[in-house]
Amino acid sequence: MAVTSHDVARLAGVSQPTVSRALRDEKGVSAATRRRVREAARSLGYVPSQAGRALSTRRSRKIGVISAELSNPFYPALLGPLHDALAGHGYRTVLFTDRGERPVELDPLLDGSLDGVVLTTSERTSSLPGELMARGVPFVMVNRTVDGIEADRCVAGNRVGAAAVAELLAHLGHRRVAAILGPESTSTGQERADGFRDALAHRGIDLPPARMVHGPFDPDTGRRGLIRLISTEAPPTAVFCGNDVIALGALNAAASLGIDIPGRLTIVGFDDIPMAAWEVFNLTTVRVDLPEMARSVAALLVERLAAPDAPARSVVLEPRLIMRGTHGPPRRDEEDYESAGPLHQMQPRIVRADTEWGRDASRT
Amino acid sequence: MAVTSHDVARLAGVSQPTVSRALRDEKGVSAATRRRVREAARSLGYVPSQAGRALSTRRSRKIGVISAELSNPFYPALLGPLHDALAGHGYRTVLFTDRGERPVELDPLLDGSLDGVVLTTSERTSSLPGELMARGVPFVMVNRTVDGIEADRCVAGNRVGAAAVAELLAHLGHRRVAAILGPESTSTGQERADGFRDALAHRGIDLPPARMVHGPFDPDTGRRGLIRLISTEAPPTAVFCGNDVIALGALNAAASLGIDIPGRLTIVGFDDIPMAAWEVFNLTTVRVDLPEMARSVAALLVERLAAPDAPARSVVLEPRLIMRGTHGPPRRDEEDYESAGPLHQMQPRIVRADTEWGRDASRT
Repeated sequence: MAVTSHDVARLAGVSQPTVSRALRDEKGVSAATRRRVREAARSLGYVPSQAGRALSTRRSRKIGVISAELSNPFYPALLGPLHDALAGHGYRTVLFTDRGERPVELDPLLDGSLDGVVLTTSERTSSLPGELMARGVPFVMVNRTVDGIEADRCVAGNRVGAAAVAELLAHLGHRRVAAILGPESTSTGQERADGFRDALAHRGIDLPPARMVHGPFDPDTGRRGLIRLISTEAPPTAVFCGNDVIALGALNAAASLGIDIPGRLTIVGFDDIPMAAWEVFNLTTVRVDLPEMARSVAALLVERLAAPDAPARSVVLEPRLIMRGTHGPPRRDEEDYESAGPLHQMQPRIVRADTEWGRDASRT
Repeated sequence: MAVTSHDVARLAGVSQPTVSRALRDEKGVSAATRRRVREAARSLGYVPSQAGRALSTRRSRKIGVISAELSNPFYPALLGPLHDALAGHGYRTVLFTDRGERPVELDPLLDGSLDGVVLTTSERTSSLPGELMARGVPFVMVNRTVDGIEADRCVAGNRVGAAAVAELLAHLGHRRVAAILGPESTSTGQERADGFRDALAHRGIDLPPARMVHGPFDPDTGRRGLIRLISTEAPPTAVFCGNDVIALGALNAAASLGIDIPGRLTIVGFDDIPMAAWEVFNLTTVRVDLPEMARSVAALLVERLAAPDAPARSVVLEPRLIMRGTHGPPRRDEEDYESAGPLHQMQPRIVRADTEWGRDASRT
């Protein structure tokens, strides 16, 4: 026979509603009563029914996190701190993993079992945020955003970070530059591509379509992209990758082809996942501060729950170039002196204070 | 004003209980009625309340998956197929990630919001399975088991797999063998250590405590373990690692120390996570079939829910040695001829059919 809140009330010598209020940490219950109720609940082995509690309070204290790509280490690395940050506000994290081509089903997000939702891997044309808005479900977009949706978001400064890579490559003297980019159907893929191309153009360096490869954010994109780029008549001396996982795939292809990095080829990534610092990779990349991202997302969501009608807010995290071992100048005999000519007349701009070039080149 | 099941019943021209039964796919409702109810629900934008449904049916169709170590790629690689396998039986997966030292809280597993639980990262002395048993919550242990708990489980053949590695090393001619192992507080750590040591002893090869290192299943254990082992007076010519993540850490340390693999040192892992096949690692390892593991776990749990009092079952998956590029014979000048003498008189046992040595050396 299951223990009920009435049994707890009897043992603690209080009313049943007081038991509920005490166990929910609501106001209006003295510390002494709260303690007496908790002790009674513990001694009886009483566990409040989540379903009953959700019906009576309309709050489940659960946040759904939608993440499609757990095989990309960026998301596991984000989920840990996100779980902690939400727990710090008293919320349990319920993870919904979208698999393959199927979109996340809407029903589980709308059935009253969640107080809010965090969207991590949306595509730019996803209908999910619009549907959540229409049903009044509070949500925050993290890392990626959706076209035309004005809602709370926390993202990395993708354009600024990609521009910092372009300036590094230009400063090192690279002219034949290529990029292996993520899908244009994601905001991260699009913004990093745009930021890189625009900053190169600003330095007088062309990024022709033949030196741009697009694909999913996975190692195979980097592997196949590098092989394709390196097989052209005038192969690039530097390759910017749309994220670290693509860059690790490119480094694997370079290793299997015996290409010396960075002597023969510079490769730069984006994200600074833990593997980027591994000795066999030692990847120069752009750091996205994941713990900071997690804290911002949790704060945005909690404030949204408290003020459903407040205007949408946008938090943009400043990325930072992390200088490790995969960048260097182009090899003299690889340089295209004719086109390199004007480069030597340009004023190098070494440091942009807002991106903190190389201030912290190591990760412990 | 929220749409209720009564609105759906009115539009579909049926009773409210029929609406509930139709939307829950219960028996006793004709296909035509089911279709009419679903169309009515869709046109009204009706979403059944999960909380209400849980109270009325005592079934949430949700399975809690407890996983502590998402930064170990083994678990993300298992969670995808597990999610799919449970979805194939009509269950939603709710992921609880245990962080740091804190144990998973018990309350969310007992509050009626879950039909069952999958435990993936238990320690051998965990109290969680015992408490779930006492409360009558159905659960399955996967990959790791807990001492003294007779409950449904699906695990890899850890002893058999580790023994296959020992026989490979012995057959290659290694005599000075070392191991960098996972925590003895986990069944995987313990069983792989025992299986390896026992099989070595059977071939007359000693594994002294000075050549055994223990640590968490992470790259740093492999990194620090390798540096410690290689700094001894008679360094090993082969190192077995308790899982692939440890082996990748060891390979990173070897790269930073300039140690030629496998010319100077053989390194073998366990699990065959996707990264083991990456070109820069090309790790010889023992494959645990994760999709098969996921399917077995889902089947065990579904059958347990249908027959709560059936005897506990144990599924052991046959591991398989995957021969890639990190194993080879010891270097002649490193061999200890005095002790190696007897080895050459032993009958080599190259192939054990049940472990399928090298039958499929590549992973696509």
